[in-house]
Amino acid sequence: MAKKLLVGVDLGGTSMLAVVTTKKGKILGEKKNKTLAEEGASSVLERLVKTVEDALKDAGVKRKDVAALGIGSPGPLNPKTGVVYHTPNLGPTWNNTPVAEYLSEKLSVPVVLDNDVNVGAVGEHILGAGRGYRSLVAIFVGTGIGGGIILKNKLYQGERYTAGEVGHTIVAANGPLCGCGRRGCVEAVASRTAIERDIRAGIAAGRKSIVPRILEETGRDTMSSSVIERALAEGDELTREVMDQAMFYMGLLVANVVNMLDPQVIVLGGGVVERLGAAYLDPVRETAEQYYLNQMDKDQVHVVLSKLADYAGVLGAAMLARELLKK
Amino acid sequence: MAKKLLVGVDLGGTSMLAVVTTKKGKILGEKKNKTLAEEGASSVLERLVKTVEDALKDAGVKRKDVAALGIGSPGPLNPKTGVVYHTPNLGPTWNNTPVAEYLSEKLSVPVVLDNDVNVGAVGEHILGAGRGYRSLVAIFVGTGIGGGIILKNKLYQGERYTAGEVGHTIVAANGPLCGCGRRGCVEAVASRTAIERDIRAGIAAGRKSIVPRILEETGRDTMSSSVIERALAEGDELTREVMDQAMFYMGLLVANVVNMLDPQVIVLGGGVVERLGAAYLDPVRETAEQYYLNQMDKDQVHVVLSKLADYAGVLGAAMLARELLKK
Repeated sequence: MAKKLLVGVDLGGTSMLAVVTTKKGKILGEKKNKTLAEEGASSVLERLVKTVEDALKDAGVKRKDVAALGIGSPGPLNPKTGVVYHTPNLGPTWNNTPVAEYLSEKLSVPVVLDNDVNVGAVGEHILGAGRGYRSLVAIFVGTGIGGGIILKNKLYQGERYTAGEVGHTIVAANGPLCGCGRRGCVEAVASRTAIERDIRAGIAAGRKSIVPRILEETGRDTMSSSVIERALAEGDELTREVMDQAMFYMGLLVANVVNMLDPQVIVLGGGVVERLGAAYLDPVRETAEQYYLNQMDKDQVHVVLSKLADYAGVLGAAMLARELLKK
Repeated sequence: MAKKLLVGVDLGGTSMLAVVTTKKGKILGEKKNKTLAEEGASSVLERLVKTVEDALKDAGVKRKDVAALGIGSPGPLNPKTGVVYHTPNLGPTWNNTPVAEYLSEKLSVPVVLDNDVNVGAVGEHILGAGRGYRSLVAIFVGTGIGGGIILKNKLYQGERYTAGEVGHTIVAANGPLCGCGRRGCVEAVASRTAIERDIRAGIAAGRKSIVPRILEETGRDTMSSSVIERALAEGDELTREVMDQAMFYMGLLVANVVNMLDPQVIVLGGGVVERLGAAYLDPVRETAEQYYLNQMDKDQVHVVLSKLADYAGVLGAAMLARELLKK
């Protein structure tokens, strides 16, 4: 079975996941570890190697069975050189870190690197909700909002590898301040961070809400997707109002993407989206459909939920590794 | 000189222009006529044929010297079938009108049809401000705002030929009503129509402005680009304020396009833009640069004025005709 397998790795701010797959994307083994970004870049790199080795053990295969490895990482980064630039999500020690070269040397395989949302888009395209379509835009909603664009069955990276930054589409000119320092980006009005900010502001201003009680009961200090879900289920009006607004803005983003790129499919993923499912998808789609310039798009553009959830990244990374072998 | 020449046609709501060019886009002859849309589709089609024939005469060449013809038209239309659907800009008699087939039969040449802004983008890409670049987005500001996308040296049309509708990017959620019936599209806050609406609203509300005097002196009833230019030159505060706002929104649009598509060049064209030149370009670019997520883009994305002005459409149409011959 020499050189027939792929490894996909998803490096996140809090955890890292590695899978071993067949060339068709069937998972044979996997391993998850904490990132422990605070221990610094070289420690994280060593742990990446260890995680891959453990995934290989889990699959019962050897290093020499691996044809290529793909890895998704928070950016900014350069897929061509395999270098991760200074990346706030990974801490201050990342600075032009040659991730692809390091892994390639340590594991003796060709390595391809791309950003986390791009590999997620590739995963959904080849193995998930976008399977069988030529063109899609995947939008992932979490603490931020990121996106990946597939055109003519290929990841569209742009001229400086920064295409797909849909989270920084300005939909509310002069609106709330975004983490990027600008105003009115969709990330500033529809991300989980924005939702949490608005609910907390409402509470601080004296609005009634059961969110503080839920946080206390669950011992959480951030408003995770499950907290939002429970507040909605228990009829919390403030949460309902803030979510309606966030979903309205996401609908505008979907419409903007469709009006500009006219793709076949929009895939929505990320924590909040996956947790709420149809309760999130339906209102977003309804707003988007109102804002399509070409009203045929109502029937022809598919706005769907991601299928791979936490595995979109690793599977996409493995599939990018497969692409590498074709070159 | 058999079959070596191209014809490019630009069909607009008020006038039509035809040129005869070499395969390199050198203009050998041309003819402009009124569209007279009110006379109905078949009359306009006949006048298109006559205009092409007059352009051929002007060039001193014969029909049989023409290898292919390209035509840009207001949409919606289908470039694949060469049919123009019901198109408000051309009047009520246009309804699945087979423009390409008609011209092809009457003139005995292969014909390619695309929408006016797409052919304009192709013109600027091959012969104008985007010459030598692989990827550009052209944005034309007039009574509406339209755009055309070139990726990897090819016109990007999308899955239903509706890509590039950048004028209907929502930048001001819940903002002013757009001609398309939705709210907050950039066309509703930055087109010439939006500028005129806001200046007139200011005047109606009692703001001081010299615009009414300019309109009276020039005998115009709409606020053309030249009226806007003169009002600015004479220090009209209301016009200044409305234009600043419109240019701010155009800057947001440019940033949205760059953040999503990461192209090499943004070309700005259309009446207002060409009339004001650097006085329009500079503030738009300044806002856009503030809103680029990737701050490298400041140095690397070129935001430039169109070069071909009224000839972008006809030259782009001729160049699309040239593409047709390669297939």
